[in-house]
Amino acid sequence: MASFPMNAWYAAAYDVELGRSLLARTICNQKIVFYRKEDGSPVALEDACWHRLLPLSLGRLQGDQVVCGYHGLVFNEGGRCTHMPSQASINPSACVRSFPVLQKHRLVWVWPGDPALADPGLVPDLHWNDDPAWAGDGKLIQVKCDYRLVIDNLMDLTHETFVHGSSIGNAAVAEAPFVATHGERFATITRWMENIEPPPFWAGQIRHARAYVGPVDRWQIIRFEAPCTVTIDVGVAEAGSGARGSEGRPGDRSRGVNGQVLNTITPETDGSCHYFWAFARNYCLGEQRLTHELREGVSRIFREDEAVLEAQQRAIDERPGYSFYNLNIDAGAMWARRLIDRRIAAEAPVGPGGARTIPLRAA
Amino acid sequence: MASFPMNAWYAAAYDVELGRSLLARTICNQKIVFYRKEDGSPVALEDACWHRLLPLSLGRLQGDQVVCGYHGLVFNEGGRCTHMPSQASINPSACVRSFPVLQKHRLVWVWPGDPALADPGLVPDLHWNDDPAWAGDGKLIQVKCDYRLVIDNLMDLTHETFVHGSSIGNAAVAEAPFVATHGERFATITRWMENIEPPPFWAGQIRHARAYVGPVDRWQIIRFEAPCTVTIDVGVAEAGSGARGSEGRPGDRSRGVNGQVLNTITPETDGSCHYFWAFARNYCLGEQRLTHELREGVSRIFREDEAVLEAQQRAIDERPGYSFYNLNIDAGAMWARRLIDRRIAAEAPVGPGGARTIPLRAA
Amino acid sequence: MASFPMNAWYAAAYDVELGRSLLARTICNQKIVFYRKEDGSPVALEDACWHRLLPLSLGRLQGDQVVCGYHGLVFNEGGRCTHMPSQASINPSACVRSFPVLQKHRLVWVWPGDPALADPGLVPDLHWNDDPAWAGDGKLIQVKCDYRLVIDNLMDLTHETFVHGSSIGNAAVAEAPFVATHGERFATITRWMENIEPPPFWAGQIRHARAYVGPVDRWQIIRFEAPCTVTIDVGVAEAGSGARGSEGRPGDRSRGVNGQVLNTITPETDGSCHYFWAFARNYCLGEQRLTHELREGVSRIFREDEAVLEAQQRAIDERPGYSFYNLNIDAGAMWARRLIDRRIAAEAPVGPGGARTIPLRAA
Repeated sequence: MASFPMNAWYAAAYDVELGRSLLARTICNQKIVFYRKEDGSPVALEDACWHRLLPLSLGRLQGDQVVCGYHGLVFNEGGRCTHMPSQASINPSACVRSFPVLQKHRLVWVWPGDPALADPGLVPDLHWNDDPAWAGDGKLIQVKCDYRLVIDNLMDLTHETFVHGSSIGNAAVAEAPFVATHGERFATITRWMENIEPPPFWAGQIRHARAYVGPVDRWQIIRFEAPCTVTIDVGVAEAGSGARGSEGRPGDRSRGVNGQVLNTITPETDGSCHYFWAFARNYCLGEQRLTHELREGVSRIFREDEAVLEAQQRAIDERPGYSFYNLNIDAGAMWARRLIDRRIAAEAPVGPGGARTIPLRAA
Repeated sequence: MASFPMNAWYAAAYDVELGRSLLARTICNQKIVFYRKEDGSPVALEDACWHRLLPLSLGRLQGDQVVCGYHGLVFNEGGRCTHMPSQASINPSACVRSFPVLQKHRLVWVWPGDPALADPGLVPDLHWNDDPAWAGDGKLIQVKCDYRLVIDNLMDLTHETFVHGSSIGNAAVAEAPFVATHGERFATITRWMENIEPPPFWAGQIRHARAYVGPVDRWQIIRFEAPCTVTIDVGVAEAGSGARGSEGRPGDRSRGVNGQVLNTITPETDGSCHYFWAFARNYCLGEQRLTHELREGVSRIFREDEAVLEAQQRAIDERPGYSFYNLNIDAGAMWARRLIDRRIAAEAPVGPGGARTIPLRAA
Repeated sequence: MASFPMNAWYAAAYDVELGRSLLARTICNQKIVFYRKEDGSPVALEDACWHRLLPLSLGRLQGDQVVCGYHGLVFNEGGRCTHMPSQASINPSACVRSFPVLQKHRLVWVWPGDPALADPGLVPDLHWNDDPAWAGDGKLIQVKCDYRLVIDNLMDLTHETFVHGSSIGNAAVAEAPFVATHGERFATITRWMENIEPPPFWAGQIRHARAYVGPVDRWQIIRFEAPCTVTIDVGVAEAGSGARGSEGRPGDRSRGVNGQVLNTITPETDGSCHYFWAFARNYCLGEQRLTHELREGVSRIFREDEAVLEAQQRAIDERPGYSFYNLNIDAGAMWARRLIDRRIAAEAPVGPGGARTIPLRAA
């Protein structure tokens, strides 16, 4: 069974990473070269010359086309060869694969599957990344693990208590009850911790933004969007100020501070991933120093996760065929995995008798 | 065919290596985490959390229990889970494997096989390591070779002449006759070189300890204890002073100097090992400087072996299925291998028809 | 199908690399130890002791014989064991393989195949390396690619335009017509570029040697000798001075400068090679500075190729079974490959029915 669906938009680069030069990146086991045309729009081509397989990323741009660095074959943005050395006629089969690609919410997205299905409306919602009501910044890190281990990690924040005890974790997170919901494409975990002592990170934020010191109501609303995007609505407000709201009615967060942890994790190979994250906030928007501080602070926290995730991947690699045990806290991760598995199964080859091949491991 | 028996005590650490923190070590292909309880007794658990496989060695001690560094599951010294986050009841199947472990002769020993067979009386005899009549010290080195290549090396000391020519080797060793004996669990090689010029190392020792300069009677009595312990009784005495003794009667070593080279080599994986060695002497017991000097001197000699052993392993890896040719000098190694092979064969799965599977390569 | 024939002379070392010490080198997947006897003649033995496989190259020379660094077995130049430790009689089967080896044109050549076929007359012609009418120097580089990718590279110099644009490449090379010829053992590509602006490298050479500035006639005559030697007759002469000659008659190169790029590429393993090259010239023979400058200049150019070749090999490794597309410019490489394939097929085991096994991929 494949470990990811092919028919999906995957983040390939931050907008600022891509310019008028060739960027090589592996997405879903596929080597791809990215560049921008003169009008700024992105192009994504298979990163191997049709002729002798040299990565096109070792060549150079010529206008909107790419010239192979070995024998000078030229390919246009559609992947068609437009020039061959020492010959007038061009073999009509000479082309490399071209991938649907677009830019949205400060990321460049690529669709490695069937181009006919590449509906721009399916790009995951990360609008906070370029919404003027929010400020923030992010990073790209490479993690040597199956992207789904990162999803598992994000869907269960009780790990904050044990992995991030010095910053955002405290016992309240591990013991607080949560509510899990899910649909066809989304799964959510909502956890409220009311009237608690804030952990160091949030104590600092609310004191800085609102000069408040004292107990808080804290929330974590984790939203998974298949196959690999997780946004986490996090924050604290003065205890008892009504941030939670009641059944069906949204709360009043005006006496709190609110952040969005934005995560999209692109499979690089079956055992590694590109992890794009950002932290956006709705307070102190103009404070450049705070943006910088939060980016580096979150970066330190994610490095703690990285060590755990890579150790976990190595342990899995040593035990082929191992199935995980699940605890109550894994409800969110289990739903995320199910939604991913359904997407993968829907793409699996149709078996004899007309039925799709059923994955051996029940979702 | 397996390369080592599982039902044996294997040295896992020097006593001083293990304290109130988590020590990860691979023994016989098994990842194990070691720690001491508050009362000082050692614990050995499978180094992978039952829940998500994170190595427990990345967590922390809590009293006599270990807390996983990802989601905080707690395991006691028996490997049973005693706490799970966010849930009151604990899955009764939640446990990790616990291994028999004990401390003896300055080493911590673990039994990776069937716990019911773990008889403390079977720990190899390395009593010189904490016998007040002997003084010395040792080291642990990691060697990238099958542990049996180290055994081969120790069972035939003619290699001293060629590998260690500047210290303990001389032509006498390669040409001296030897006597081989063996039993169910032991094999010995006895070599006496009488009235010879001592090699540089021993010339220095007897001059230092006994102010003697001149020809010596030299002995090497190598004793293999299956599966992986080799002690070597070595020394020199004034030539003709009766150190050898006669048939059945022990000699008089009072005009000589005597050392014990203690070696136990624990398989880490099929292609690497933990090599614990020490050098104990029965002279100049209080001289700390001499202990230090001997430890570092022997260490230099063993590094010469390490280079040879790792080169040999690489050569073997390039020739799968290769069988060694044997010379007269290999008598000791051949007996050691036979005793090891018998132990491995005795653990092999029973084949159809009730007979144990016979190893393809005759011992 | 094998990737190289075994019955061929392969360059193993430059003459100056080999002396009275042991040189380990892998040739055609075979580990070989080389040394010179006291009379200076080269010896090539299998680099693994008969007894325990330790590389003999870790031992030492004793007269014309080699002593193993582990147990002191001694082997003579024919590979026969002449001494074993602690035993008087020597096992008559105790020998290591010895390879035909000779020195010619400043290189030491070894024959890894059937010794009975090792005809010294089959050594490739690289006489410029020690011809007093020519001056030059060369290097050995290790490239992590199938040796045939280097052959492909040398047989099609249009790549100069794209890989070496700052030195020897210009648009003229990529667009100039060429003539391909071939025989049983040779394939040639001849390309004349008449009345062109010389590229930077050649403009400098003809100005230095002949104080000439202006358009030139440029030639590249590539000669492949199966399985892995390529000599390239290169140069420029004053435009219109008759360097090309006419049908059947050699030209007059007296108003030009001429070089020979000498290349022989020895398979180390299936995926790596030893690339021996030299650049010889027939002008300014006594200028030591020019020899040095040319060697380093060509070295820089070859490093550009190295990067391309290793990237190409990695791309091939990721696509097992991939077949290349060919362009007109690949005529020379295709013929070289065919001549290589014939040599390999001629050595393939005879299949059932008496016919030689036919390679699956048509040449």
